[in-house]
Amino acid sequence: MTAKMKVGIINVTGYTGTELARLLWQHQGVEIASVTGRSAVGQKLGQVFPHLSDLDLVIQSGVADVDLVFSAMPHKVSAEAVVDALKRGIKVVDLSADFRLKDAVEYERWYETSHPAPELLGEATYGLTELNRPQVASSRLVANPGCYPTSVILALAPALKQGVIGPQIIIDSKSGVSGAGRTLTIETHFPEVNENVSAYALEGHRHLPEMVQELQKFAAELPLKVTFLPHLVPMTRGILSSCYARLLQSDTDGEQVRELYRDFYRGEPFVRVVDSPPQTKQALGTNLCLIYPTVDLRAGRLIVISCIDNLIKGGAGQAIQNMNLMLGFAETMGLEMPAVYP
Amino acid sequence: MTAKMKVGIINVTGYTGTELARLLWQHQGVEIASVTGRSAVGQKLGQVFPHLSDLDLVIQSGVADVDLVFSAMPHKVSAEAVVDALKRGIKVVDLSADFRLKDAVEYERWYETSHPAPELLGEATYGLTELNRPQVASSRLVANPGCYPTSVILALAPALKQGVIGPQIIIDSKSGVSGAGRTLTIETHFPEVNENVSAYALEGHRHLPEMVQELQKFAAELPLKVTFLPHLVPMTRGILSSCYARLLQSDTDGEQVRELYRDFYRGEPFVRVVDSPPQTKQALGTNLCLIYPTVDLRAGRLIVISCIDNLIKGGAGQAIQNMNLMLGFAETMGLEMPAVYP
Amino acid sequence: MTAKMKVGIINVTGYTGTELARLLWQHQGVEIASVTGRSAVGQKLGQVFPHLSDLDLVIQSGVADVDLVFSAMPHKVSAEAVVDALKRGIKVVDLSADFRLKDAVEYERWYETSHPAPELLGEATYGLTELNRPQVASSRLVANPGCYPTSVILALAPALKQGVIGPQIIIDSKSGVSGAGRTLTIETHFPEVNENVSAYALEGHRHLPEMVQELQKFAAELPLKVTFLPHLVPMTRGILSSCYARLLQSDTDGEQVRELYRDFYRGEPFVRVVDSPPQTKQALGTNLCLIYPTVDLRAGRLIVISCIDNLIKGGAGQAIQNMNLMLGFAETMGLEMPAVYP
Amino acid sequence: MTAKMKVGIINVTGYTGTELARLLWQHQGVEIASVTGRSAVGQKLGQVFPHLSDLDLVIQSGVADVDLVFSAMPHKVSAEAVVDALKRGIKVVDLSADFRLKDAVEYERWYETSHPAPELLGEATYGLTELNRPQVASSRLVANPGCYPTSVILALAPALKQGVIGPQIIIDSKSGVSGAGRTLTIETHFPEVNENVSAYALEGHRHLPEMVQELQKFAAELPLKVTFLPHLVPMTRGILSSCYARLLQSDTDGEQVRELYRDFYRGEPFVRVVDSPPQTKQALGTNLCLIYPTVDLRAGRLIVISCIDNLIKGGAGQAIQNMNLMLGFAETMGLEMPAVYP
Repeated sequence: MTAKMKVGIINVTGYTGTELARLLWQHQGVEIASVTGRSAVGQKLGQVFPHLSDLDLVIQSGVADVDLVFSAMPHKVSAEAVVDALKRGIKVVDLSADFRLKDAVEYERWYETSHPAPELLGEATYGLTELNRPQVASSRLVANPGCYPTSVILALAPALKQGVIGPQIIIDSKSGVSGAGRTLTIETHFPEVNENVSAYALEGHRHLPEMVQELQKFAAELPLKVTFLPHLVPMTRGILSSCYARLLQSDTDGEQVRELYRDFYRGEPFVRVVDSPPQTKQALGTNLCLIYPTVDLRAGRLIVISCIDNLIKGGAGQAIQNMNLMLGFAETMGLEMPAVYP
Repeated sequence: MTAKMKVGIINVTGYTGTELARLLWQHQGVEIASVTGRSAVGQKLGQVFPHLSDLDLVIQSGVADVDLVFSAMPHKVSAEAVVDALKRGIKVVDLSADFRLKDAVEYERWYETSHPAPELLGEATYGLTELNRPQVASSRLVANPGCYPTSVILALAPALKQGVIGPQIIIDSKSGVSGAGRTLTIETHFPEVNENVSAYALEGHRHLPEMVQELQKFAAELPLKVTFLPHLVPMTRGILSSCYARLLQSDTDGEQVRELYRDFYRGEPFVRVVDSPPQTKQALGTNLCLIYPTVDLRAGRLIVISCIDNLIKGGAGQAIQNMNLMLGFAETMGLEMPAVYP
Repeated sequence: MTAKMKVGIINVTGYTGTELARLLWQHQGVEIASVTGRSAVGQKLGQVFPHLSDLDLVIQSGVADVDLVFSAMPHKVSAEAVVDALKRGIKVVDLSADFRLKDAVEYERWYETSHPAPELLGEATYGLTELNRPQVASSRLVANPGCYPTSVILALAPALKQGVIGPQIIIDSKSGVSGAGRTLTIETHFPEVNENVSAYALEGHRHLPEMVQELQKFAAELPLKVTFLPHLVPMTRGILSSCYARLLQSDTDGEQVRELYRDFYRGEPFVRVVDSPPQTKQALGTNLCLIYPTVDLRAGRLIVISCIDNLIKGGAGQAIQNMNLMLGFAETMGLEMPAVYP
Repeated sequence: MTAKMKVGIINVTGYTGTELARLLWQHQGVEIASVTGRSAVGQKLGQVFPHLSDLDLVIQSGVADVDLVFSAMPHKVSAEAVVDALKRGIKVVDLSADFRLKDAVEYERWYETSHPAPELLGEATYGLTELNRPQVASSRLVANPGCYPTSVILALAPALKQGVIGPQIIIDSKSGVSGAGRTLTIETHFPEVNENVSAYALEGHRHLPEMVQELQKFAAELPLKVTFLPHLVPMTRGILSSCYARLLQSDTDGEQVRELYRDFYRGEPFVRVVDSPPQTKQALGTNLCLIYPTVDLRAGRLIVISCIDNLIKGGAGQAIQNMNLMLGFAETMGLEMPAVYP
């Protein structure tokens, strides 16, 4: 029996951090050797998060020597932690936005701060695993995608790559409230968000440039015009993205696009092209992305519905999927659970 | 003190029917003289609906002689009730779909049944009150709009009328579960719809032709290409519609379109052009439609968010608004309540 | 037409304050002349609370001269505002806990602070309207009951007064999250409270001494032993209290106790003794308290279920009911709305 | 590597059945060889339940030869399936109520039908695993406890066994809606149960005699007087039971009873005596029962809060825990997952 590899979680006290801890706890190949927090330093993990009390770990201020570390810090401060870890020879999956955008100027425009480590932008791999598998496997720094971009890029990549749609794209996403994190805000106060739906970030959401950067790769000569509008719905987990674009050939039908999508994702363990419109609950608690492409024949449009669990495929799960590749494990290790239903 | 006018509710036992009863109970100008049901005939209203126990009414099989009747029957059977009422000299607000579409062939295509009374289609007024006020006032038969079309047509009429947008329109609506009615289905069973978001009717929803028919009036020379996709979200009441279309002049900004919308709806008691994105909760329990038009400058698109309470402005409330005009009351009578918050 | 009387709301920015504003806005006899806030001073009410934008009021730091003022301040600071208002000759309905307990020592024990105005404790009337109607009508200072005590005292007063039950009483209450107020806490953060039920205040809730004080009046020679345990459930509004006590005569049956309760509350506009177990939704948006007493024959126990809307009969509604008596209006004025269903 | 043992699920199409399938799918020691349904016979499991599409199984009308079968049928018909399976030499975990009560007369009183197989009542083991471990291990027929009794018996057994409390017991339970099953009813229709709390079965719930039968074993000379009142709360999964009883020695304190409970459950993998009041979410998705006993010193009462996931420890999970013992596996096999949070 070989020893497990050691991993750490920087900032375990947010929802992404706790979800990493929950999933890694059941992983056969690694052990969580170190967790840090911005708050609660010195407390046992189980004191703050009772569901993790079996994990006998104390929240520390700095990360120990491990084989790989996940950073679940907010942007800007995450980059600093990443630089430090890389210097110590630790591989990194960064769940912040810091290494997703390739262009430091674009980063500054959207995040309103200068990039703390632009020299690493070239090296970092955008960790949408299905689309960048070899690069992830050989990388020491993987930028884990945002939750919305995961659901959107997987939904549109096949259609763009096959030249099925034009450049005018509209994305309407609906997210559960855990996507807004564990920080208290009036927008996430129960009586305000319960029995309520709202659109937000109408001036432009920070996940937009990330989507455009990655989708544009599949449509090199076609400058995409993407509108992305996120909505908050009264549930805890889940994202459903509805994507709309004009078909270049208006007689393409739904079965044709589904066949094309099935080809594109054939053999993928975590992407399912389904035969009827998926629901977020069907992905709840899993690393799956469920995709249903169809056609509005009247209007000549492609519609793609995709569903993920925002904290798993949209966060901690995909991070572990990337870790598996980076550390040489089977890609699916620790991630093969069926959805929690009902 | 003048006597109140008498009104009846055909099929009081669905959510639209109970909402009519609740609202009419507080109306100063009318009294509910007669309620009928497809089930529960012979029972007192309060036995089936405890919140209506102050209304001392027995559910009957046929409607009494009244000044105006609301039909909350399903389509097809509603038309039959309408024909009968009109023959008896009773004015009608029909909340079914039967008299919304002007074209009996289109009706048959979408409702998969021949129209029971095509001779009345020409006479019936489409009761989106703000857009057809004089016709409603003089009509004996008003077809009350669907919930989705109410939120959508009000959201797009100003932009189309002023020629601001092109004909390619995408509408992504999110509805609470009461919109699916009181009939039991697995899709509305609590454990299935709670913590879940889903898209439905991807092959085309019956509210689409109604939207197109009415919106097309504002864009006579521009054949609209409308995609409409409804979603079910885990809340009881409310619709938020997100509408997308290309700006004909890409330098139009948000404030310009809001000004245009404010002009269009100036003086309207129930339509509010708001200065920040509205939420469904802000319309909860009211007859309001809250509209926020803005611009995605990067993509050159108009985005319009609109919110209503699906059972009030999207149903019973608008029906009473129409009744007020038909019976000569102030348009706002019985409908001036602030939103229930939180 | 007589001029309306003027009222003010101290601390309009919490949920009790906004609910007062919403309900008073529709009251025929008064106008809201002044609102104050601990935050948002200088802003228009509608900027902070869009559903109140028709109320053309600016949030001020101090209350104007009015006929009656509602204090929705937290305890301790509320007493100071009350003292000031009374000095200015303004009648007060205090929605804080400051004047509910008659014993300043008991107050200090539970609220861990000395009472700011013990000299007023004797004068203040406990405003559970149904039980103290004449005193409320003649009082210049009414202490509005807590939400839990309202549901509990109304549920148990008849049984205690008629000597039906023994002194061992257990009260298990379930409350919606708005009862915890608008202040942000991790316990009321949506992802934490959604899909969750919890008990809290197991060491003793501050509403307990208030219940005991008032219930004891109905059982002078019987020192009550009351256990009260509140629970948080994932909904916005509503309290359901389940009350348990031993029947002194074990052959008493459910219909007998219901008859006794009906007698006790005969003619009451806002208390309904119902014939089947009520649900919080049946009181949603109303000033009603629905009560269902029954008997567990096997165990010889009385069970009483009571339901209120915690923000209305448990807060703003009862405060207005008290105001109506204090200002000489009909007790039901502004409070006769049916429940919002569904 | 040894071959897996084979198990079957009778009536896989309810929530208990699907939960069994989900959990067994990940079990290392068994394979699901056969599933039957009352509906959907002939369909693939994944067609009806997309989250189970990886389980390549067709729903059949009769169960195949297996080592052990779970019956998730309703009472009465379940007994018939059990008799048949036992005749074929198949071990059975029966999740219906048919073999829980030892007294056929009591069964007939509560279930209003004669018992289909009274000759098996003596042999059947009540499968509350922690309390009947040896009997479960050697049994060929285990009656899996009801969801409420699981949460209640575990909460009260230590106090009764140690003689800490008197015989007057009140149990107030709060359950998520999945406990009501997958059958459509108006009570579980989303718009009716959302934003609502209700008590039900005030005349006596069928889980009461089961609780009394098992609790009485711990208090032989003390005829228990148990009141049990279940409530429905707007969430999908979870039960929180609040149990109240008088302390025989009124100076017992909370820490003393917690110590006593810790002793009672020392070493138990699935029962946790916790140091602060638990919440249902902390058990969500797990086979845990979290128990917090404390004391109301003012009233001299023991209060015990217990939380389970009604579909796991209250159903499918405990059934698998029992199967593990019956088939010789480690008791925890397939059941060691941390709670889903948030």
